[in-house]
Amino acid sequence: MPTPLSELGEFSLINRLTSEYKAQNESTIKGIGDDAAVLKNNADQVRLVTTDMLLEGVHFDLVYTPLKHLGYKAIVVNLSDIFAMNGRPEAVTVSLGISSKFSVEQIEELYSGIYAALEHYGVDLVGGDTCASQNGLVISVTCLGSAAKDEVVYRHGAQENDLICCSGNLGAAYMGLMLLEREKRIFLADPTPYFSPKFEEREYIIERQLRPEARGDIIEIMRNTGIHPTSMMDISDGLSSELHHICDNSQVGAVVYAERIPIDSETFAMAEELSIDPFTAALDGGEDYELLFTVPLKYYSAVEGIKGISIIGHITDKENGVKLILPNGSEQDISSGGWEAQKAL
Amino acid sequence: MPTPLSELGEFSLINRLTSEYKAQNESTIKGIGDDAAVLKNNADQVRLVTTDMLLEGVHFDLVYTPLKHLGYKAIVVNLSDIFAMNGRPEAVTVSLGISSKFSVEQIEELYSGIYAALEHYGVDLVGGDTCASQNGLVISVTCLGSAAKDEVVYRHGAQENDLICCSGNLGAAYMGLMLLEREKRIFLADPTPYFSPKFEEREYIIERQLRPEARGDIIEIMRNTGIHPTSMMDISDGLSSELHHICDNSQVGAVVYAERIPIDSETFAMAEELSIDPFTAALDGGEDYELLFTVPLKYYSAVEGIKGISIIGHITDKENGVKLILPNGSEQDISSGGWEAQKAL
Repeated sequence: MPTPLSELGEFSLINRLTSEYKAQNESTIKGIGDDAAVLKNNADQVRLVTTDMLLEGVHFDLVYTPLKHLGYKAIVVNLSDIFAMNGRPEAVTVSLGISSKFSVEQIEELYSGIYAALEHYGVDLVGGDTCASQNGLVISVTCLGSAAKDEVVYRHGAQENDLICCSGNLGAAYMGLMLLEREKRIFLADPTPYFSPKFEEREYIIERQLRPEARGDIIEIMRNTGIHPTSMMDISDGLSSELHHICDNSQVGAVVYAERIPIDSETFAMAEELSIDPFTAALDGGEDYELLFTVPLKYYSAVEGIKGISIIGHITDKENGVKLILPNGSEQDISSGGWEAQKAL
Repeated sequence: MPTPLSELGEFSLINRLTSEYKAQNESTIKGIGDDAAVLKNNADQVRLVTTDMLLEGVHFDLVYTPLKHLGYKAIVVNLSDIFAMNGRPEAVTVSLGISSKFSVEQIEELYSGIYAALEHYGVDLVGGDTCASQNGLVISVTCLGSAAKDEVVYRHGAQENDLICCSGNLGAAYMGLMLLEREKRIFLADPTPYFSPKFEEREYIIERQLRPEARGDIIEIMRNTGIHPTSMMDISDGLSSELHHICDNSQVGAVVYAERIPIDSETFAMAEELSIDPFTAALDGGEDYELLFTVPLKYYSAVEGIKGISIIGHITDKENGVKLILPNGSEQDISSGGWEAQKAL
């Protein structure tokens, strides 16, 4: 009996396909299993490489996604993985599969977003592949970066008593998605050319969903301040999922304080309006592209002084598991759930 | 009025999207426009990167393509681009979009082909992305390689009087495709579980289409023999298209002798059976993944002595254009046509 893909999630499938695999080349320092692979460039420097695929109808909905924003986001999600290794993104390849429903002008619009992101982050377009698709739009981006060998930060370096930190705020991209989906449903129930979606005072969460940024600024501040994280990854699937990745890879546990999780006021307001728990949005919503990292306790005051970084908890021993402390002092397990765009897997 | 994509071909669309673009980073030695991009690794060594996307229904037909072969081919077409720069492939990322019609076992079958190719060529799998697709199978592979800075061979180095050479033989993959398509039509006209396609004495051309190899062996022989090509690319779209790429990039012309173009006996036989000109198959058929390269005249006897390399013509000045000399001595222009899987573009 063939096994349906729906029996496995994305992570289980990847695990089944790659768990037995061992990289052979001396040039491969780190293969599968971190935000980016690490290859040897020379004695002091490494090459970082990461890739992400975006499929129409799975990762984006063109009903409410401007093509320019989509191009920008397709680049940003890759740069975010390079920053999450404490690296510098340098070059991307962009492959597109395009169905005949698109016009040349629409693809130029998509490219204008790609170019805007590349210019903003100082990254070069160096190649790609462009072909027809039978159905919808396929975007596959690969990003190459570099880093000094001893400055690379992996998921596996977190130590007991390290502080758990995150940049920016969480849950906003998810609440933006919920709002966009609600307005889409309202429109589809009564499609009129005069339809005007209600986005007033929700511009921030919409932008977080449609046109996120990668936190190279935080990486640079930490580098300039002399703070070297012990572990790091970007928050693409949600805080809960990423915490488990860091804890599993580092063989440690974690305690996170709910009231310390940074959540924007628009996220709170939207969550209240839609009767969603804002902490669930922050923990299990995805696509924030903020950085989650751990630093030794000695950096407490240095980190605390940096605008845009929140200390949300600390690393414990493995037996403790991954715990959330609620404002009333009660404790609960953080599941490894997290958000998957890929519901069908 | 929006411009339909069908008004432009693949190359025109890429040209329109990227012709104004200039790479900014000092680390980018060669961006768009060759078989692979060239990035600086250190003073002596460069990093090569190339990417290819394969879409179901456009680049492959699962009616007659075994998933294991497809996995193998998806790797090979990328390695071929690294060899075509005179480089050594080291690592790949593999991204898959998979629709729910596939079982876990089928995806494992695909991966078994990917792993077989990686092992055969000594290349590591270092990352990727796996997600659900709404329609069919999407495969996007990126390959990283390396080369000494002064051994990289570009498309632009061909010089007047250089010999034009190619490896292996041409047109076989195209004739294999024609045979597979014919048998598919016969089956679809009368679908029976007892259908048995007629592949006797056509195994070679079928294998050339379904499970091609990349010519790392030729690169190694030339390296060991001290032959350094002045220009090179792989033959993925057809000899005529690639000749034009080399001539355009090198600002030269070319003369090719039809009777010197290497064509296998199965290709001839199949072409005769299907009333197709075998030279058209060799010139405009695609997916042979052989190497097309030019070498200075002084290497004539060295190249002639290598099994698996044919000298098919020579480089002329630009005014001469790109010409084919027929066996009767008459001359005709070689069009820049070539084969595009991407008919809709």
